[in-house]
Amino acid sequence: MSGAAHAEDGYELWLRYKPLPAAEQSAMAAHASAIVAPGSSDTVRVAVDELRRGFGGMTGHAPERATGAGAGAILLATPDESPDVAALKLPLGALGKEGFLIRSIAIGGQPVTLVTANSDIGLLYGAFRLLELAEAGQPLDKLDIQSAPKLQLRVLDHWDNLDRTVERGYAGQSIWDWWKLPDWKAPRYTDYARANASIGINGAVLNNVNAQPASLTAPFIAKAAALADVFRPYGIKVYLSPRFSAPIEIGGLKTADPLDPEVKAWWKAKADEIYRAIPDFGGFLVKANSEGQPGPQDYHRTHADGANVLADAVKPHGGIVMYRAFVYSENNAEDRAKQAYSDFKPIDGKFADNVIVQVKNGAIDFQPREPFHPLFGAMPKTPLMMEFQITKEYLGFATHLVYLGPLFQETLESDTYAHGKGSTVAHVLEGKVDPYRLTGMAGVANIGSDRNWSGSVFNQANWYAFGRFAWDPDASAEKIAAEWARMTFTPDPAFVAPAVKMMMGSREAAVDYMTPLGLAHQMGTSHHYGPAPWVSDLARPEWNPTYYSRADASGIGFDRTATGSNAMAQYAPPVARMFANPKTTPETLLLWFHHMPWDTRMASGRTLWADLIAHYDAGVADVGTMRAEWAKLRPYVDADRFAETSVFLSIQQREAQWWRDASIAYFQSVSKRPLPAGVTPPAQTLEYYESLRFPIRPGN
Amino acid sequence: MSGAAHAEDGYELWLRYKPLPAAEQSAMAAHASAIVAPGSSDTVRVAVDELRRGFGGMTGHAPERATGAGAGAILLATPDESPDVAALKLPLGALGKEGFLIRSIAIGGQPVTLVTANSDIGLLYGAFRLLELAEAGQPLDKLDIQSAPKLQLRVLDHWDNLDRTVERGYAGQSIWDWWKLPDWKAPRYTDYARANASIGINGAVLNNVNAQPASLTAPFIAKAAALADVFRPYGIKVYLSPRFSAPIEIGGLKTADPLDPEVKAWWKAKADEIYRAIPDFGGFLVKANSEGQPGPQDYHRTHADGANVLADAVKPHGGIVMYRAFVYSENNAEDRAKQAYSDFKPIDGKFADNVIVQVKNGAIDFQPREPFHPLFGAMPKTPLMMEFQITKEYLGFATHLVYLGPLFQETLESDTYAHGKGSTVAHVLEGKVDPYRLTGMAGVANIGSDRNWSGSVFNQANWYAFGRFAWDPDASAEKIAAEWARMTFTPDPAFVAPAVKMMMGSREAAVDYMTPLGLAHQMGTSHHYGPAPWVSDLARPEWNPTYYSRADASGIGFDRTATGSNAMAQYAPPVARMFANPKTTPETLLLWFHHMPWDTRMASGRTLWADLIAHYDAGVADVGTMRAEWAKLRPYVDADRFAETSVFLSIQQREAQWWRDASIAYFQSVSKRPLPAGVTPPAQTLEYYESLRFPIRPGN
Repeated sequence: MSGAAHAEDGYELWLRYKPLPAAEQSAMAAHASAIVAPGSSDTVRVAVDELRRGFGGMTGHAPERATGAGAGAILLATPDESPDVAALKLPLGALGKEGFLIRSIAIGGQPVTLVTANSDIGLLYGAFRLLELAEAGQPLDKLDIQSAPKLQLRVLDHWDNLDRTVERGYAGQSIWDWWKLPDWKAPRYTDYARANASIGINGAVLNNVNAQPASLTAPFIAKAAALADVFRPYGIKVYLSPRFSAPIEIGGLKTADPLDPEVKAWWKAKADEIYRAIPDFGGFLVKANSEGQPGPQDYHRTHADGANVLADAVKPHGGIVMYRAFVYSENNAEDRAKQAYSDFKPIDGKFADNVIVQVKNGAIDFQPREPFHPLFGAMPKTPLMMEFQITKEYLGFATHLVYLGPLFQETLESDTYAHGKGSTVAHVLEGKVDPYRLTGMAGVANIGSDRNWSGSVFNQANWYAFGRFAWDPDASAEKIAAEWARMTFTPDPAFVAPAVKMMMGSREAAVDYMTPLGLAHQMGTSHHYGPAPWVSDLARPEWNPTYYSRADASGIGFDRTATGSNAMAQYAPPVARMFANPKTTPETLLLWFHHMPWDTRMASGRTLWADLIAHYDAGVADVGTMRAEWAKLRPYVDADRFAETSVFLSIQQREAQWWRDASIAYFQSVSKRPLPAGVTPPAQTLEYYESLRFPIRPGN
Repeated sequence: MSGAAHAEDGYELWLRYKPLPAAEQSAMAAHASAIVAPGSSDTVRVAVDELRRGFGGMTGHAPERATGAGAGAILLATPDESPDVAALKLPLGALGKEGFLIRSIAIGGQPVTLVTANSDIGLLYGAFRLLELAEAGQPLDKLDIQSAPKLQLRVLDHWDNLDRTVERGYAGQSIWDWWKLPDWKAPRYTDYARANASIGINGAVLNNVNAQPASLTAPFIAKAAALADVFRPYGIKVYLSPRFSAPIEIGGLKTADPLDPEVKAWWKAKADEIYRAIPDFGGFLVKANSEGQPGPQDYHRTHADGANVLADAVKPHGGIVMYRAFVYSENNAEDRAKQAYSDFKPIDGKFADNVIVQVKNGAIDFQPREPFHPLFGAMPKTPLMMEFQITKEYLGFATHLVYLGPLFQETLESDTYAHGKGSTVAHVLEGKVDPYRLTGMAGVANIGSDRNWSGSVFNQANWYAFGRFAWDPDASAEKIAAEWARMTFTPDPAFVAPAVKMMMGSREAAVDYMTPLGLAHQMGTSHHYGPAPWVSDLARPEWNPTYYSRADASGIGFDRTATGSNAMAQYAPPVARMFANPKTTPETLLLWFHHMPWDTRMASGRTLWADLIAHYDAGVADVGTMRAEWAKLRPYVDADRFAETSVFLSIQQREAQWWRDASIAYFQSVSKRPLPAGVTPPAQTLEYYESLRFPIRPGN
C-alpha cells in the first residue's frame, strides 16, 4: 500500500535480508543453525548481530550464539580465538589484517561454515560476504572463498558542511545531525557503518574539503569522537578536513605558514587534542590552494611543505594526511588540465612518509568522461590514491540513472605505461607499478538524509560499486552490478540480466547526451545542472564551457597536442604518442585532445558534425530504451521503488532531450551547418535554452 | 536490535496500528469484519484504505470492502450514498460539512458500526476517530459519538524556503523536495496528509511567510499543484505565501502599490493562473510590513488595502487571504507589544469579506508565556484566527521536552471580557463573541525531513495537540496528551498516567528555567538558543533582551501600565484593571506588566529576588524529575524511542541548568544582591556565559 511506513523505501540498501520462499528457508537455516564466535570484541559482537539479523530475516529464525560448533554452525573466529581454527593450520598470511577466508569444513564430523581471518575486522568482512552469498541465492555448502583488500585506505569523503548543507549533495542534507551530537548518536549512524563495512569501506572524512575552521574546534572534535565511537566496531576510522588557515582563524596566530615554528606547534597541539578524544583518528584530508582555499603557496611554500606540517602533527599517533592534487589557480593561464601535474610532479619524493596524494580520476573535474589523470604513474616516490566522485555532480544529480561502475573500471584499467605495458591505474594505486607505502581510494559520498540515503535507489549502486572497487581495483563493473541488483532487488535472473544491461549502458548514454566524443564541462556554470555550452562571459577562462569545447566555424575540440596546450606530453611516451594523433586517439576522447574540422570523417563514416549529433540522438534514444526496459521489470519490483525509478527515468528522458536539443542548437550556431538529413531540429530556439535559469537548486 | 531498519523510529506518529495481544485481536476483528463504503470518491477510497491498514495492523487481518453490511461490518457512508443510512433519518445537521457521527447500530438484526457524515471528508475524519478509539483500547460495541470542528480553517503554516531550509525548523530540512516535484510525489507526502487528516487539519501553507518571489512563478505553482493532488483526497487545501512585492520582482511592474490598477490586474491574473493549476487552491497567507518584508505601508496604504487586493484576486475562485497581524517596525518607538493593535484596531471592518486576520497568541513572539494578544476581542468586524507556533523556536528547539498543550489551552481559555465574562479567546475564534464569517487556527509547523517528522517523538505531541485544539478550541490539554500517549506508545495506564503528568508539567518547567514571572525574550538574539539576558547593544531596542527585562538596581520588569507603555490599556477594561495593579496581576505575568522592586514580597513569602531564583531552581529540578520519571517508563517503551527521549532529557537538563546559572549570574550583576541562603551559585562566571557563541545552529 502506498505510503505504508514499512514499504520498500530503500533505507535497507543491499542489506535487506527479506524472507526467502518457505521452501528455501530450511535449506538455508541448515547452514546457519548457530553462531560460534569465541571472540569478545565489539567487532565480533556486531558481526554476530549482523549474521543473526541476516539469517534471521531470510529464514525467519535468527541463529543463536553458541559455544560448540554443531552441524550447520557458522564458526566465526581467528586462529587466536579458537583452538578449532588454529588446529586447521590454514595459510592465512595472504589475508593480511583485513582479509578473510570462508570455507565449508567439517569439525568433529559435522559440517560447519568457517569464517576466519587474522583479525576481528576480517571476521566482520567475512560475515558480510557470507550474507551476500546467501542473499544472492548462492549455495552455501561448498564454500571456499578468500579475499583481501588490495588497497589500505578505502574512504568516503563527505562534502558535508557544519550547517548540514552538503556541497554537491543531492540526497537531502548531511546525515550528521551535528546539533544533537555528541549526545545523540542516531541509530542511522550505525546503519551507515554497517553498510560501509559490508563493502569494505574503512574510513570516513566527515566534513567538506572546503572546510570551515570550526571543524577543528573542541565542540566539533567531540562530535566527531561520538561518531568514531559508533564506527569503531565496524573498522571505520574518522578523518577530518582542516582549513589550512585554521592556525589563524581558531588559533589566533598571525600566520599559517607551514614552516613557522608556532604554526607547527599549533598543529601538533591540535592533533594531540584530537587524539585525546579519538585515539584511532585517521588523519586529515586537505584541500589547499585550490578554488580559493588557503594553502602553503600563500606563503610561497610548496604543497609538500603544506602536507608535511600536518603529517608531522599526526605521525606520533599513527595518523596520515591525504593531500588533494586538485589544484588550479585563478592566476594561472596554463591549461587547467595541466596544472595539478605541473604543481606536483616537481615535488615527487618531498612528502613525509605518512602523506598520500589524492588525485581525481581525471585532470579536470569528475566529467562524464575524462582520460585518466596524468599524475598516475608519474609520481614514483609519492603514494597516490584515487579520488572518484560518487555523487553525480556532473551526471544528472539524483534523478538520472547513471551507474558509475563502467567509469570507475575504465579509469582503473587505463594503462599509464609508466613502466611499460600493464602499468594500469589500478596497479599504480595498488603499489605494483611503483612501491607505495600507502595505498588507497576515496569516493566523494552520495549519502544524505534522504530515506534512501543516495537520492535514488540506483544511486545506491554507485556507493556499492565504489566500495567494491576500493577493495579490488581490478574488479568488474558488470559483476558488481549483478551482485548489487541481486541483493537490492531479487536474485531472479529475469530481473538481474536486464537490470544489469541497463546499468552497464547507462553511463555511455549520459556521455552521449551530455558530452560526447571527449567534450567536457558543458554544464551550466557553478550549479552544473543541464546544458550551457554557450557560456563564455565568466571572469576566469576555465569557468566557461566554451573554454573546453573551443567550438568555432572551423571545428571543435581542445588542442592539447604540441600545437596546443601540450597537456598530452604529461603522459608517458606511448600514451602521449597515442593521444598526439587524432587517428590513434580513441574517438571517445577525440575532442579532449584535438581541435578537429567539422568535416572530419569519423569511424562511422559520418562527418564529425553528423557524428556529434548522432551521439546526442543515441544518448536520448538509450534513455528511452532504459525506460521501456524498466517498465518490463515491474513484476519483479515492489511498487514504491518501481514508481520512483519510473518517474526518475521520465525526468532523465526529458532532460536528455533538453541536453541534446540545447547542445545541437548551440553548436549549430557556431558550425553554421545544416542539420543532416533526417535529424530532428531542436524543439526550441537557442535563445530559449540560453534563457533558462535555475536559481534554486540542490548541491551548491 | 539497535539500528534495525524497522525499529520504532517515530515515522508512524500516532498511527501505529501495532498488533494487539492475540487474545484481544478476535474481539476487535469482530467489530471490523468488513467495510461497506458505497461512496466512490478518492476520499472514501483513502478512508477505506486507512481502516484496512489500521484494523489489519491491529488484528492481523485487514477487513475486506464489501457491499452488504453483515455482522460486525463498518458502514461508512453519507445518507446520500447509502439507503440504509438514509433510512436511519439521523439528525446530522449539527455536523456541518466536516463533522461525523459514529454509532453502534443494528441493520437487519446484525450489529454494525456506522460512520456517517454529510460529506466524504466527514467520513474520513470519522474513520480516523474510530481507529483512534481502537488504538486506545476503547470498547467498540456501544459507540455513540459525534463531533464537528468549531473552526473552519485548521491550517499548518510551513516556514519552508524553496531551497529546503526551514526557518525555525529543528527537524531537518523541508519535507517538500521541491527539486523533484512536480514529477516525483514522494510517498511521504501521502503520510503527511494522513497524519493531518487524522487530527482534522485541512490546510497547509507550503512556503515561508518570509516569502521568496519565486514561490509564485510557474515552476513552483506546478510543484504546489502536485502536492495539492496528493492532499486533495484528505481534505487538505494548499495555500501559498506571496511576497508582497512580487508584482515588481516577477511581474516586471514598477510598483506593488495595492491600489494601482496594474498591480490589481497582476494579482488577478496570477490568481487565475494558480487556480488553473489548483482548482481548489485555498488562498494566500501574507506577512507584510513586518521585519523587513515589503507591504502596503511602503505605498502609504493600510494593511486592509494590502489584504484586499489579494482577496479580490482569489475571491472569484472561492479563495481567502490570511493576513498576519504580526507587525512591528524599525521606525516605531512604541512598545513592540502595542504595535499590532495600534495598526489593526483602527482598520477593523475595512477588510474584504474573504480576509481573516491571523494573530499570534501573544503580542510579542511565541514566548514560553505571554498574556493573550489584545487584538482578541477587539476586532468585532474582522474575523481573527489564532497563530500558534508548534515548532519550539523559543522553547528549546528539538531536544527539550515541552508539551505545548497547556500553553495552547491557557491562551484559549483566557477571558477577553470583550462582551463580559466568558468572552474567552476560544469563543472569539469560534465567532461566538462577535459573529465571524470566517474562523480558524494556524500552527507554525514543526515538521521536517527527520525520520520522526518533528525532531523528537515528544514534539509530535505538539503537532497532534494543535490539530485537536484547532478542531475544538475548548478542548483539554490533558485529555489530548493522554490520547496521544496511548496511541503513540501504549494504552497501558501504568505508562499513560506518568507520561501525561510529565507532559503537563513540562511547559511550566520551561517557563521556570527560561523566563519565569512574566519575563520574556531573554534568549540569545536572532538564534533564540539559550540564555542571553545581558544583550543590550543591538541596533533596535526590541532586539535586546534588556528591553524586555528592564532589570536594574531598583528592580525588574516592563512597566506596561499607565506609568509606562500603557499596553495594558489595549485590553478590555476588566482585564486592563486586573493587569494595572501588581496585586491583581497573576504572578506568572507580573514582570510582563510591572517593573517591581527586588524586595517585593511575593505570594511565596519570599522577596521577588529570592522568588525569581526559586523559579529557576524549580525549573531545573522539574527537568530532573522528568528524567527520573522517564527512566521508570523503560518497560513500556521500545529501545530506540526510549533512548532518544532519555538522551534529549539529559540535554534539556544540562541546558536548563545553563539557563538558570546564566540568568542568575546576570540578574545578580544588576541587582547587586547576595544569593539567598542555600542557593547554589552559578557554576561559571557571567563573563563565561557571555562568551558563548553559536555560529552554527539550526533554524536560521
